[in-house]
Amino acid sequence: MKISELSARSGVAVPTIKYYLRERLLPEGERSAPTQASYDDAHVQRLGVIRALIAAGVSIAEIRRVVATLDSPPESAHELLGAAHAAITPTEDDTPDLTAAEELVAGLGWKPGMTDPAVLRAVARALNGLSSAGFEVPRDVMATYLASVRAIADAEIAGVPSSSPEVAVQYVVLGSALVEPLLLALRRVAQQVASAERFGAEGL
Amino acid sequence: MKISELSARSGVAVPTIKYYLRERLLPEGERSAPTQASYDDAHVQRLGVIRALIAAGVSIAEIRRVVATLDSPPESAHELLGAAHAAITPTEDDTPDLTAAEELVAGLGWKPGMTDPAVLRAVARALNGLSSAGFEVPRDVMATYLASVRAIADAEIAGVPSSSPEVAVQYVVLGSALVEPLLLALRRVAQQVASAERFGAEGL
Repeated sequence: MKISELSARSGVAVPTIKYYLRERLLPEGERSAPTQASYDDAHVQRLGVIRALIAAGVSIAEIRRVVATLDSPPESAHELLGAAHAAITPTEDDTPDLTAAEELVAGLGWKPGMTDPAVLRAVARALNGLSSAGFEVPRDVMATYLASVRAIADAEIAGVPSSSPEVAVQYVVLGSALVEPLLLALRRVAQQVASAERFGAEGL
Repeated sequence: MKISELSARSGVAVPTIKYYLRERLLPEGERSAPTQASYDDAHVQRLGVIRALIAAGVSIAEIRRVVATLDSPPESAHELLGAAHAAITPTEDDTPDLTAAEELVAGLGWKPGMTDPAVLRAVARALNGLSSAGFEVPRDVMATYLASVRAIADAEIAGVPSSSPEVAVQYVVLGSALVEPLLLALRRVAQQVASAERFGAEGL
């Protein structure tokens, strides 16, 4: 199909599609003439993925890494997850102290060497953010966090399709980036429900 | 204390402090001379809060709303939570269809009118993002999400200090914004732990 039809089918404006092509988020179409290229269903699907990631707040640079992982998935299912997380975890230059983070994630069943350092650094940064704001998570609330994210991860990993690496990587990359806004939004709804039940809804 | 000492104590550079003053994130100091103001411990603490929110990816405009909520907290504990969420939930112009979101959050114990519409719209937007990427969360995984966020919210709301509204609002606002990066980072660690246990760690 021509770019105009790709635009109509995907609901993405032609100039935006050209921008994605320039940014290498979308693979080039097949040249059908010096000034014309032909696109297919894979382009429509890829545009859906790009739009969803943008809506989820993922940056262009991160999306480029996500689509690179989609285009050349690693071989093992476990490597896959590391690559997916590396693609969507912003690399930062700081090297936070990992001691408190390591102690905390031991409660998830974590052992040294089990994860790539980037995710541990993200935990350390989050803990630093809390402590520099003078905010302490009560011990029993933290225990609930650990038990809950472990339950979530177990359910998610059990569902990773083992049939095809392409399907698995898509599942993991999109699952990580796109499920995050859902979980955060659900947590806020649950907080308001719990608050209404505890304090009474008359305040709303 | 002078601005130079505030900078030394908070670890925030003087030009950055002046920027926060211009952006009304930090209250003015007390004028001690026409060109000099005096700051106190509350400024040091507020700078810690601002830095933590920035590190958590909260925008300047959202931080301005958060500190406004901190400076004039609403009266009831339940209103508090709504104000806190309103402060940190970006207002967007779209009006997504809420049907699927309402069906989903019924699984959290939600009933019509129990939450403000902004959080429900955030759930609807997250669901739209998933479906436009062609990503479907398996039914049992979704059930785990609902049970887990409800357990998290119950633990969090049970811990809201009922003694002082100032403490409660600080707890809720900072808890919402600052705990999010922690939960997301913990989920990624837990996914890698679950993956290592399931698929073997030799791939890493």
